[in-house]
Amino acid sequence: MAKKNRNSGCPVSNSLDIWGDKWSLLIVRDLMYEKQCTYGDFLKSEEKIATNILATKLQILEAEEIISKSQHPESKAKFLYKLTEKGISLLPVLIEIYLWGEQYFELSENHKKFLQDVKKDKEAFLKRAQENLRKAL
Amino acid sequence: MAKKNRNSGCPVSNSLDIWGDKWSLLIVRDLMYEKQCTYGDFLKSEEKIATNILATKLQILEAEEIISKSQHPESKAKFLYKLTEKGISLLPVLIEIYLWGEQYFELSENHKKFLQDVKKDKEAFLKRAQENLRKAL
Repeated sequence: MAKKNRNSGCPVSNSLDIWGDKWSLLIVRDLMYEKQCTYGDFLKSEEKIATNILATKLQILEAEEIISKSQHPESKAKFLYKLTEKGISLLPVLIEIYLWGEQYFELSENHKKFLQDVKKDKEAFLKRAQENLRKAL
Repeated sequence: MAKKNRNSGCPVSNSLDIWGDKWSLLIVRDLMYEKQCTYGDFLKSEEKIATNILATKLQILEAEEIISKSQHPESKAKFLYKLTEKGISLLPVLIEIYLWGEQYFELSENHKKFLQDVKKDKEAFLKRAQENLRKAL
């Protein structure tokens, strides 16, 4: 993939221009867990994303090749969203956000278990999780 | 510091509620480089943050104890902003954003050099950079 020349020479600023908002990162989080989601699946997340925001964020993430959209195999009226390779490479960012949050917030039991698994061996976890997501590409 | 019980049991969602936007993370980035900044220093960054957005984000980050504000030693009219321990612990998130951005954007020479240093030994870099920032606490 050709590297883009954006307004800023700072990779942080350029990256945040694409996905530097709560909802985009929660979409990536959902796809990290579920591998593939329909539009309706995203609406079910506990954060209750508004349908107009979801539609806009999915469009941007698809245009930026962070996610891909394909016909649902069981319904012509539905689409399936998955992370692309570019989206899968956001996993280390997500995991560091998890680990930061763990220090400052009370977590649900599910999240505690997930983070125990991450912390046993972070590099191995990332490799395994990324390989797993690549199978769905 | 007591852990907060937020709306969501998800540490990603709770974290992004505080600093999950471009401008907050660019403020953290500036403080990571400079250790301490005045209001005017933030305005000089190439992303040209609007003064009303800067004021709001600084207030939120201070209320959430990500940054601290103190009287400038040389001027009663100025304040110095620094990262707190909670802010310094955001460094691993920032570094992963850098590394993601490096894969997809053209970087300036300064950023290339910075990332070469990071990639030599990421853990050692983080430890060194965090210790350095703690000296300014």
